[in-house]
Amino acid sequence: MTHAGWQQLAAAKRQSILDAIPEKWRIQSPIPTAEELRDVTGPYIQQFLTPREIEITETDALGITEKTTSGTWSAVEVTEAFCHRAALAHQLVNCLHEVFFDAAIEDAKQLDAYFAEHGKPTGPLHGLPVSLKDQFHVKGVETTMGYVGWIGTFQGQKNDPRSKVFESELVRELRSLGAVLFCKTSVPVTLMTGETVNNIIKYTTNPHNRLLSCGGSSGGEGALIALKGSPGGFGTDIGGSVRIPAVFNGLYGLRPSAGRVPYEGAANSMDGQSTILSVIGPLAATARSLKLLFKAVLSQQPWYHDPLVLELPWRDEIEKETRALIEKSKSGSSPLAFGLMNHNGVVRPHPPIARAMKIVEQTLTRLGHKIIEWNPPSHAIAHQLARETYNLDGGADLGHHFGLSGEDQPYQVIVEPGPQKSASEIAVLNVQKREYQKQYMDYWNSTAELTGSGRPVDGVICPAAPHAAVLPCKYDHVGYTSFVNLLDYTSVVFPVTRADKNIDVSQPGTGFLNEMDQEVHGQYDADAYDGAPAGLQLIGRRLQEEKVLTLADYIGANVPKSP
Amino acid sequence: MTHAGWQQLAAAKRQSILDAIPEKWRIQSPIPTAEELRDVTGPYIQQFLTPREIEITETDALGITEKTTSGTWSAVEVTEAFCHRAALAHQLVNCLHEVFFDAAIEDAKQLDAYFAEHGKPTGPLHGLPVSLKDQFHVKGVETTMGYVGWIGTFQGQKNDPRSKVFESELVRELRSLGAVLFCKTSVPVTLMTGETVNNIIKYTTNPHNRLLSCGGSSGGEGALIALKGSPGGFGTDIGGSVRIPAVFNGLYGLRPSAGRVPYEGAANSMDGQSTILSVIGPLAATARSLKLLFKAVLSQQPWYHDPLVLELPWRDEIEKETRALIEKSKSGSSPLAFGLMNHNGVVRPHPPIARAMKIVEQTLTRLGHKIIEWNPPSHAIAHQLARETYNLDGGADLGHHFGLSGEDQPYQVIVEPGPQKSASEIAVLNVQKREYQKQYMDYWNSTAELTGSGRPVDGVICPAAPHAAVLPCKYDHVGYTSFVNLLDYTSVVFPVTRADKNIDVSQPGTGFLNEMDQEVHGQYDADAYDGAPAGLQLIGRRLQEEKVLTLADYIGANVPKSP
Repeated sequence: MTHAGWQQLAAAKRQSILDAIPEKWRIQSPIPTAEELRDVTGPYIQQFLTPREIEITETDALGITEKTTSGTWSAVEVTEAFCHRAALAHQLVNCLHEVFFDAAIEDAKQLDAYFAEHGKPTGPLHGLPVSLKDQFHVKGVETTMGYVGWIGTFQGQKNDPRSKVFESELVRELRSLGAVLFCKTSVPVTLMTGETVNNIIKYTTNPHNRLLSCGGSSGGEGALIALKGSPGGFGTDIGGSVRIPAVFNGLYGLRPSAGRVPYEGAANSMDGQSTILSVIGPLAATARSLKLLFKAVLSQQPWYHDPLVLELPWRDEIEKETRALIEKSKSGSSPLAFGLMNHNGVVRPHPPIARAMKIVEQTLTRLGHKIIEWNPPSHAIAHQLARETYNLDGGADLGHHFGLSGEDQPYQVIVEPGPQKSASEIAVLNVQKREYQKQYMDYWNSTAELTGSGRPVDGVICPAAPHAAVLPCKYDHVGYTSFVNLLDYTSVVFPVTRADKNIDVSQPGTGFLNEMDQEVHGQYDADAYDGAPAGLQLIGRRLQEEKVLTLADYIGANVPKSP
Repeated sequence: MTHAGWQQLAAAKRQSILDAIPEKWRIQSPIPTAEELRDVTGPYIQQFLTPREIEITETDALGITEKTTSGTWSAVEVTEAFCHRAALAHQLVNCLHEVFFDAAIEDAKQLDAYFAEHGKPTGPLHGLPVSLKDQFHVKGVETTMGYVGWIGTFQGQKNDPRSKVFESELVRELRSLGAVLFCKTSVPVTLMTGETVNNIIKYTTNPHNRLLSCGGSSGGEGALIALKGSPGGFGTDIGGSVRIPAVFNGLYGLRPSAGRVPYEGAANSMDGQSTILSVIGPLAATARSLKLLFKAVLSQQPWYHDPLVLELPWRDEIEKETRALIEKSKSGSSPLAFGLMNHNGVVRPHPPIARAMKIVEQTLTRLGHKIIEWNPPSHAIAHQLARETYNLDGGADLGHHFGLSGEDQPYQVIVEPGPQKSASEIAVLNVQKREYQKQYMDYWNSTAELTGSGRPVDGVICPAAPHAAVLPCKYDHVGYTSFVNLLDYTSVVFPVTRADKNIDVSQPGTGFLNEMDQEVHGQYDADAYDGAPAGLQLIGRRLQEEKVLTLADYIGANVPKSP
């Protein structure tokens, strides 16, 4: 394909996404530039909506299902409100890859008809619009994952009978739960970066501060949900790709351990790489909404439909135990204990993130919890092992898919061209990874001697990135998220505060940890970052989703509201 | 090292094993040849034992713990009885790599002292001798895994401080449970074959018929437990290595799914290969003893000590549900349903195994269970994918360890010298494996339409090998076990009958499936196989150990006793 060829194809696809937005929902007035108006959430986007649409779309996912499963709100009304707001969101920050509002409204009508006939909902997500990262196959639309070469194909294969017909396992389950699917959201091509940019839709910006990135790779999800164009959605995470866009957009996001949410039948980069598995996780405005989505999927027994899913239903007993620990803490006995890691020994965080850490530390102290300093095995090693994993095939998979169209690679990703690793080299890496996991596990166990309760820490709090939502092209260190993937631990990001140029002033740099630390330090710009959400992550042990979701809900509710 | 060098080293090690057997336990009279006396179980070995020793050693593991945890039998008396019988077993069939009876008796004394002081056992395995395949590190002795080049080293590394000091995680847990460790058992060098032979101890024969193999790679375990020189032990299984020696020796053996029993800190072949993980499983004379050992290990919460173990305690509710299904079946309602696979489409089984299938079919029918013919996705594909997995590194790992001493490879293994696979090739294989698993899962689900209960089959019964305990050098097809590893399903082998030259006469061969089928058919020799145990396997879905153990106990108890 010629150079002009791929650009035309990309432009046509880009236009087709805009064309799928009904005329009535197009913004007619000129949209201010990012310099003129950074933040398009809140009043700016609300001006295009009716009070009723605002009421619906500003209710969280759990709140919506309370209305839709009881028949208080109709699925059609809720769906239309979110379609409208999602249409606006895309025009503001470029966050959609596929738009299928008509199909969504048709599905919503069916749900309303079911409710009218049976007097009960179809499932726990009855009438809830759910957005999906553009890795999930949904009938009627295509999946490009940002590759120009995938346009009009099935994962790059022409004339594949699955094209526009096949649905991913998670999609099947969401439909069975009563969810309404209405759009697919933007990703960085390759998925292997913390910003969202590709040759089709170009750059997705951060709705809280459009000078900044929305994060990635589930960036469209983060931006859309921040604009309340979706009450919740699903992304994927192999190095931080759920958590980064969630935390950059002031949301909650869950990175479950591998084996809980079904990946079966979804598109992926470097499929078959098994040292660090990409996992699917939900993003939403509240922790309770993450729980709703996660628990609903588990109720579908995905372990009978995806060979990589473990037979682990939602464990009420872990949730109850965690709540009991919270209650016990209030009475001062055997308090919850948290490890706090202010920095990872590789890159120190910018002032807004350092302040978020302080806020949470003060909150936990105020609540009577035990805090210990987290001094784990070297995170530099974890970062290195994760990088090696992402580069096992020397960029062969990405190169193949870029080659389908001949498109330019629009952005630097964390995969670099190089030789393929051999079976023996991969085996060595797998052993190094397991040994690191063992060291980390032993360290975690060892904290039982420090907490005073006899239990090791209940969770670890640390940054999710060295910065708040990042300036374009400045995401240089993903080590704050990738170590969780290497360990296969559970993690929830949660909002804490916002960058404030008056408080979070630049600090003089001294005693840098290394060149990277110095470079990231130098990239802080108090003015540019002003207003960016600054959140953190809460990390739990492997397969402890019930515990981290319960704790994140508790901590998030107790963090002082930012002004 | 010169040719003579490795042979001398091997001979010295071989002699040191014999030397570790106390004089009083050495067999003074000439041991009959295999031709003179095939079967050395029962009366032959009993002649060297006291009635009390026979009573103790012919009690199954669960029965022993009933006595030792209640203080009825002392740990020392039980340990001494098994040490004696294990010493005899080794002299008869060559089944031990390491002998540490003195340490065992010392440990037993400590256990007795504990019981005397506290009036209670140290744990559920208090005073139970447990044997271990020679992959587990136990302090005081070495681990050779059959490699001459590992003698005097730690996994081939000289001057490693872990040598004779470090213990594998499972060993730590077994000690904590009160088990007494007393010997390590023979393996085929490389572990990658279904017979047990190496340059140190040479060939381990089958105690029921010493013309035949004891199986492999946990062959020493199978032979030792068949001779009742151990009430139970642990082997490993990447292609059948627990199940083959268990079924060849008339025992029960469990292949759990990956992630239940801790492999942490054990030696292995091709460590870090992650497409099919080797797993640890118990072997014993009864299903209830497997359950005892498996459940005891889970009680140690290995998921806090091995990063590859899943947080899945023993699930009483699954055992109860399974028992309820058995009870329900008795009343004729919603019966248990089993898929029966008489052959795998690649190689048809020999007459003794075909007859075992008939016996179980008749038993299940008599018990009122539903039987359906198992017509799964091609097992030839499964076999091929497993073979590719075993050969990913083109034999590099094995070659390295043979090269440490320059020893000859004593036997053909299922790994062949060849090129290393690349990261992209391994990724393709991983995807093919996942797709096969998905097809198999969907097929299993589809049987819900055939069982009449609305549930898919509860288990699948099939051969564990095309033959009973095999004639040396005739193990040509491991596809009956390796497909379970590829699928990561659960499987228990159980004894059914014995080969009988008067019943299991050679059948004229017609309509062979392929050349391999014809070759295996031609290898049947009714006279040579006479007396060999002929068992089968019961397969369950992934991570359904509680269910398959309960069902195997039930089916095994109802199979008519062989004469």
